[in-house]
Amino acid sequence: MKTLILAGGKGTRLFPLSRKKYPKQFVKFPSQESLFQQTLKRSLKISSPEDIFILTNKDYLFLIKNQIEECCPNIWKILEKRIILEPVARNTAPAIALAIKYLMDVENINIEESLFITPSDHLLEPVDNFISLIEKAKTLATHDYLITFGIKPFRPDTGYGYIEVHNYKVNNIAFPVKKFHEKPNKTTAEMYLSKGTYYWNSGLFLFSINAILNEFKNHASEIYEKMVNTSYEEFLKQFINLPEISIDYAIMEKSNKLVMVPMENIKWYDLGSWDAYYEILPKDDKGNIFFNKENIISIESQNCFLYSEKLLCTIGLKDIIIINTDDVLLICKKGESQKVRDVLKILEQENRYKNLLENRTIVFRPWGAYKELERGDRYKIKKLIIKPGEALSLQLHHHRSEHWIVVKGTAKVVLEDEEGRLKEYYVHENESIFVPKSKKHRIINPGKLPLEIIEVQVGEYVEEDDIIRYDDIYNRI
Amino acid sequence: MKTLILAGGKGTRLFPLSRKKYPKQFVKFPSQESLFQQTLKRSLKISSPEDIFILTNKDYLFLIKNQIEECCPNIWKILEKRIILEPVARNTAPAIALAIKYLMDVENINIEESLFITPSDHLLEPVDNFISLIEKAKTLATHDYLITFGIKPFRPDTGYGYIEVHNYKVNNIAFPVKKFHEKPNKTTAEMYLSKGTYYWNSGLFLFSINAILNEFKNHASEIYEKMVNTSYEEFLKQFINLPEISIDYAIMEKSNKLVMVPMENIKWYDLGSWDAYYEILPKDDKGNIFFNKENIISIESQNCFLYSEKLLCTIGLKDIIIINTDDVLLICKKGESQKVRDVLKILEQENRYKNLLENRTIVFRPWGAYKELERGDRYKIKKLIIKPGEALSLQLHHHRSEHWIVVKGTAKVVLEDEEGRLKEYYVHENESIFVPKSKKHRIINPGKLPLEIIEVQVGEYVEEDDIIRYDDIYNRI
Repeated sequence: MKTLILAGGKGTRLFPLSRKKYPKQFVKFPSQESLFQQTLKRSLKISSPEDIFILTNKDYLFLIKNQIEECCPNIWKILEKRIILEPVARNTAPAIALAIKYLMDVENINIEESLFITPSDHLLEPVDNFISLIEKAKTLATHDYLITFGIKPFRPDTGYGYIEVHNYKVNNIAFPVKKFHEKPNKTTAEMYLSKGTYYWNSGLFLFSINAILNEFKNHASEIYEKMVNTSYEEFLKQFINLPEISIDYAIMEKSNKLVMVPMENIKWYDLGSWDAYYEILPKDDKGNIFFNKENIISIESQNCFLYSEKLLCTIGLKDIIIINTDDVLLICKKGESQKVRDVLKILEQENRYKNLLENRTIVFRPWGAYKELERGDRYKIKKLIIKPGEALSLQLHHHRSEHWIVVKGTAKVVLEDEEGRLKEYYVHENESIFVPKSKKHRIINPGKLPLEIIEVQVGEYVEEDDIIRYDDIYNRI
Repeated sequence: MKTLILAGGKGTRLFPLSRKKYPKQFVKFPSQESLFQQTLKRSLKISSPEDIFILTNKDYLFLIKNQIEECCPNIWKILEKRIILEPVARNTAPAIALAIKYLMDVENINIEESLFITPSDHLLEPVDNFISLIEKAKTLATHDYLITFGIKPFRPDTGYGYIEVHNYKVNNIAFPVKKFHEKPNKTTAEMYLSKGTYYWNSGLFLFSINAILNEFKNHASEIYEKMVNTSYEEFLKQFINLPEISIDYAIMEKSNKLVMVPMENIKWYDLGSWDAYYEILPKDDKGNIFFNKENIISIESQNCFLYSEKLLCTIGLKDIIIINTDDVLLICKKGESQKVRDVLKILEQENRYKNLLENRTIVFRPWGAYKELERGDRYKIKKLIIKPGEALSLQLHHHRSEHWIVVKGTAKVVLEDEEGRLKEYYVHENESIFVPKSKKHRIINPGKLPLEIIEVQVGEYVEEDDIIRYDDIYNRI
């Protein structure tokens, strides 16, 4: 069985821990493993690394590389070849069509093969119960069923889509699906809850490639035509013209091959807001959750959710959520955290804080990461952390020179001399080197430990786009 | 008339804007002028610069220098010689005795001279009304009265001391004082308010040196003996042994020469808590105060006081005070901000965040200021801003070397060479210089504009106390 991990989602609702270029699935909260990393590890219990594919877009490629190298370092080389990049963000129907097309045309996979599709931004536990369930559901896929997975609701949630099923089972495990329902209002959600035949839609799917192809043919012919009549390269080119539509809407709502396996004895959480995190995390006897407790002095708090990356002192707070990162502070009455979207909308409209909306102060790059420490009128200071064996591309800047001071490790620096020749220098801890304007340069970490460099840029313009690259060490982008 | 500005107070209640080494009187909030600067400007309308004296301690000397140079640059050279440093913090009785002793012995001032004493951490307005009042009160001082200034209370405040007066006037301007009362409880405060003969104690005084000497003699003989029988140097040495007692308690409560001038048509605020600031600052129609509004996105706030130095997003808050600096976040239910003291007590007891409790991230020095940008395992990065014409002391460090990169201005650097000779170098914008361990060095700003340097310290120990100074360019400390 193949597994397809959907990792291209924009997941903005965990702002300010999530950002545009660091969406929810990659955020390491509340554990030190991101939901993407947890999904990957779970998938490795379902499929071998060679059978795992990741669908994402180029903005997240560095993150995926960094996070796979971190949690499963041995399989990056295998997975690297199994990353499918969406040319642009379309909804899930075109995205899944692209993945199917890739599996058929590039990987030449037999269309009888089963495919398990999982989002990477949900919390699922315990993993073992989940694996057994997938094992049981597998046989259904060989009978050309499209299988969805539903969670028995325990409250009238208005944040999830619902799957309505018949009250009899197929193969003693799945209910035939009667209808898909979009996120309901409160009254409707209460009705769904009372009926007992409505389940939350988990967004997980299992089917054979053959079966889904048939359903594309029956219900999404525009996409299907392109899947069967064009080359993979051509399909990529035309991807932008495909209808922006979800797989639920395009196919699942219309298919009569659809069944739903209930996820019994499995906890599933979408965690789409800070309130959702408050619900699931353990609380003290005053109903408080303190994250990074060593940073928090809290007097007389009640039912608060406090997360802080610097010293936080609170006095007399009740029902308040505080998420305090090094560049943004979010404070929210409990129960109102879905309005984070409104905050983001305002920021977008006002066209402010562009950098901050895109990235945290740490920005991940293919070679490691950098952090901006200070920005002045004609200068900028960054800390670069370059992973062992990695290198920045050969580049030059016309508007700034750079001072590099190695504070940890050894750097191999390639630098253009007065005559235009590239020369190599080794710069050790506590040594520095000067890179003049308009001279080609590159940093390499030749060592076995991370290399840390303080970079002081000085010039009339110190933005990221003053860069001319002479090679691209990460050719896929 | 001489004026004595009391500027040695510890004013911690505006934490996190105030810190141990940056107390309330120097904080530039809500205006760009600190309360100390406002007090100085006010005093200049009462006395000429040559007649103004400042009582403080060495920890605040740089601040006083910086703030005087900023608001009244021409008089620093005059005032510099009129700063009286307390050897240790004692209460106001010894402090005022020290100032009197200084005026008599060092300045040889006639004991018939009047002295106006003003704290520097109160807000007083309008200034012109206040000046007229002092003018009127002056004649009373020549009749050997000790004059205090009282504010007609308009609410039963439990945070102020009260002065009870007789209901007849002396010289048509002052009421004889009946009794001093310490901060009352609510019921007592309500009684005071209803009586009409109780006033808030402003902490301002006016008297002749002769008159206060007499009262020291009558009521604080231990202090008086030292004032008349020792030299100024000896008095300084014995200062630590004087009783720690307030001038109110030692003298004012006991004197029968005491009168009170009511401060009519003058607004006076102690501003001892964030709640007090909320009361006096202008609010929008939802009762909100937003400081640094450009940093704030606020949805559905009501009666909130928000101050933030970085992006702050709030949703649905009511009656909340938020003070967000670059290193500390304080969030407090409105009405509870006096508990900031408890927060500080906890931090002290736990012996945490020592640097942060002492200073803001910008630390003022005699030559300018520095800001710590980043701290790593074996390195630290600082930005130094050196004022024109200023210099750091000649110094060396045994455990760290330093890289200096000039990002603005020109530095004159004195650096010890291999043979132990001191050599001078000019380092211009975008140039750098390396200072090895155990080599003497000094930075001088020879220019007309502030000099900005990025300093990267690398070594096995990068704390402030690894420093050996070879001279002290600020000999008074």
